[in-house]
Amino acid sequence: MKARVQVMLKTGVLDPQGEAVRHALGALGFDGVEGVRQGKLIEIDLAGDDPEAAKRQVTEMCEKLLANTVIESYKIDLN
Amino acid sequence: MKARVQVMLKTGVLDPQGEAVRHALGALGFDGVEGVRQGKLIEIDLAGDDPEAAKRQVTEMCEKLLANTVIESYKIDLN
Repeated sequence: MKARVQVMLKTGVLDPQGEAVRHALGALGFDGVEGVRQGKLIEIDLAGDDPEAAKRQVTEMCEKLLANTVIESYKIDLN
Repeated sequence: MKARVQVMLKTGVLDPQGEAVRHALGALGFDGVEGVRQGKLIEIDLAGDDPEAAKRQVTEMCEKLLANTVIESYKIDLN
C-alpha cells in the first residue's frame, strides 16, 4: 500500500523558501505570480493492505516525525 | 488560479533524504515501511483565469526553475 503525505506550512506562517521561488520566477520574467508556498511531498511504501491501519500508522508518523504540527499541516492520501 | 506542482526524483535516482526518513521511522518503531521517497510540493497563485495559458506558463517554470529535469519529474495540477 502506498501513502502520499503532503506537508505544508500553515497559513500565516512565513515561508522564506516559497518567497525565494516567487522572487526567482519574477527575475526570470514570469508575470502574474501572486504567491508561492513550498512544502514537502513524502511517498511511503507500506506493507499490508488494510487502509484503516495504514491511515492510523501514517497519521502517527506525521505527528511524530514527518510534520512539525506547530507550524505545518499535513494531508494523507492512500492508494 | 492556483497551480500545484509536485516534483519528485525520478525512479532509480538515489534519494538520501527519503532514505533518512525511512531510517528514522524504523528507529521510532514503525514496522512495514518498505520505502520512502521525498519530493517538493509547490503551490503557485497565478493571476488570470485561462487554464491553457496557466498550464503553459507553469510548465515553463518547471523546466526553467522548479525542477531539475535531469533527475526530477514534475506533475502539474490546476484548480
